[in-house]
Amino acid sequence: MSKIYVAGHKSPDTDSVCSAIGYAYLRNQLVKAGSPYASTHKEEAVAVRQGDLNPETEFVLKHFGIPTPELMTDGAGKKVILVDHSERGQTLDNIDQAEIIAIIDHHKIGDVTTPNPITFINMPTGCTASIVKALFDFFKVEIPKEIAGILLAAILSDTVAFKSVTTTEFDKKAAEELAKIAGIEDLMAFAMEMFKAKSDVAGKSPRDLLYRDFKDYMMAGKKVGAGQIEVVSLDLLAEVKDAIYEEMQKVKAEGGYHTIVLMLTDIMKEGTELLVVTDDPSVIEKAFGKKLEGKSIWLDGVMSRKKQVVPPLEKAFGA
Amino acid sequence: MSKIYVAGHKSPDTDSVCSAIGYAYLRNQLVKAGSPYASTHKEEAVAVRQGDLNPETEFVLKHFGIPTPELMTDGAGKKVILVDHSERGQTLDNIDQAEIIAIIDHHKIGDVTTPNPITFINMPTGCTASIVKALFDFFKVEIPKEIAGILLAAILSDTVAFKSVTTTEFDKKAAEELAKIAGIEDLMAFAMEMFKAKSDVAGKSPRDLLYRDFKDYMMAGKKVGAGQIEVVSLDLLAEVKDAIYEEMQKVKAEGGYHTIVLMLTDIMKEGTELLVVTDDPSVIEKAFGKKLEGKSIWLDGVMSRKKQVVPPLEKAFGA
Repeated sequence: MSKIYVAGHKSPDTDSVCSAIGYAYLRNQLVKAGSPYASTHKEEAVAVRQGDLNPETEFVLKHFGIPTPELMTDGAGKKVILVDHSERGQTLDNIDQAEIIAIIDHHKIGDVTTPNPITFINMPTGCTASIVKALFDFFKVEIPKEIAGILLAAILSDTVAFKSVTTTEFDKKAAEELAKIAGIEDLMAFAMEMFKAKSDVAGKSPRDLLYRDFKDYMMAGKKVGAGQIEVVSLDLLAEVKDAIYEEMQKVKAEGGYHTIVLMLTDIMKEGTELLVVTDDPSVIEKAFGKKLEGKSIWLDGVMSRKKQVVPPLEKAFGA
Repeated sequence: MSKIYVAGHKSPDTDSVCSAIGYAYLRNQLVKAGSPYASTHKEEAVAVRQGDLNPETEFVLKHFGIPTPELMTDGAGKKVILVDHSERGQTLDNIDQAEIIAIIDHHKIGDVTTPNPITFINMPTGCTASIVKALFDFFKVEIPKEIAGILLAAILSDTVAFKSVTTTEFDKKAAEELAKIAGIEDLMAFAMEMFKAKSDVAGKSPRDLLYRDFKDYMMAGKKVGAGQIEVVSLDLLAEVKDAIYEEMQKVKAEGGYHTIVLMLTDIMKEGTELLVVTDDPSVIEKAFGKKLEGKSIWLDGVMSRKKQVVPPLEKAFGA
């Protein structure tokens, strides 16, 4: 029998990978139990990833003993469930030739449409994993210890240990309950272990670092790329910053971008150095109220691409 | 303080109106309780309707002693929650000037997009009210007797007392539980009362009947209208059928439609006489495998516009 593939977005982060694994597990349990919710499609659900894992996600899966999902980038002819995204630019290739069974997300409502009614659960939470946790509760399905662990890790990752402005009470409550199931007593110590793993830039090529968590957007008809590297200290990036900047210039030319920004986010200082290559520096000034000095600007308190970088950029492009 | 308006689709049916009332009530309870789910917007939620109530909905609200929601057709400058639709063609005028707070629906994913993350709950159930019922359970909010009554009525209406192919186990379970709360012992007797009210065509103008439950679609760039009148027996429509057909011809010319179909659905016989005015009768033949004889075709077993009329039409237009 064919399968249902549960896929996060391109340049997968911890939420994208762990929510896919968690939702696939939940769905398989519902099918086994004969739940009316999963009655239309009874195939086995399996989590897949659209790209290489970042070092944080690698650490998390290893820590909880969960195997790495298979790589899958093309949706043609497949039944798929999308988690952590609903934008065509971030989804599987040939999505029009896939059958979308469900979407579970926490972003703005994107441009994916479907010919038939499907399950689409989107909530304005800090993390998709918080919604997956809520769905376990809703369907009264027990969460295994290791699944609780990776869902918790996803919440800590996406909310930067609750420091990000995207954090909601919903995420905090979910994390508390997951920590109990996973048997993790010191949340902050565990988060710090994750962030140290995430900060590992040693031996990575500048292009790998740029693409670690990189998304494409269309803003007023212009192609814009926005990436993010999170580290416990910007010192870790001092030696590679110039090489990364050169890589941004190359990618901009090759990919026909109007603008590429890369957030170098300091988790401890709670701020971001925004590296910028652009055809029009005034857009950056309009978006962030600061003139570009050399290659970058410092944005105090900015940690969320979704809430603090993409919306002002979109507004500046639109204006 | 400004309000949040909860609106169903144009040409409101019982699900559209009752789900709006139910969800507005639920949201207000969550805000009162300080729930993290409703923390971003604390304004009072009020249900509104985009048009006149059909006689079934009038019967239902009267039966459970619930006042008719105010008429509201323009979303400009307002905070809104959309229930039972996510298509631009079915929503409030000037939706681009509204702030969409949430969408609760059970249709295919439409073309509404949002600039920020919102709550979007869509499930492939027979009725939006079943999802609203599930949300009450999820948030552990008690359902008042009269709200349970109207949500139950919405499920019986949208699923044609569980006869429609759109019916899921999810709807049946929700209806059972709601019936207990509402104190309704004989579901089928209650459904029949509703359907008799719905079948009341006496004294209605042909145009009112045509627009009773009428939706616009774009199919391969062509404007298509699809309406539905449900009656306990087609005999009730015998005298007005010709006048309705003339009205369809007029509306087609005035509105620049390529095709208008009107489902005259016989609830007891479980089938539909499809009245058709079109620029291209071959589309109807392609969609339903039957040649148009005179003004209509009989479609045995067809009761759902959403599952049995719109998809084959879309396919026929696309091919």
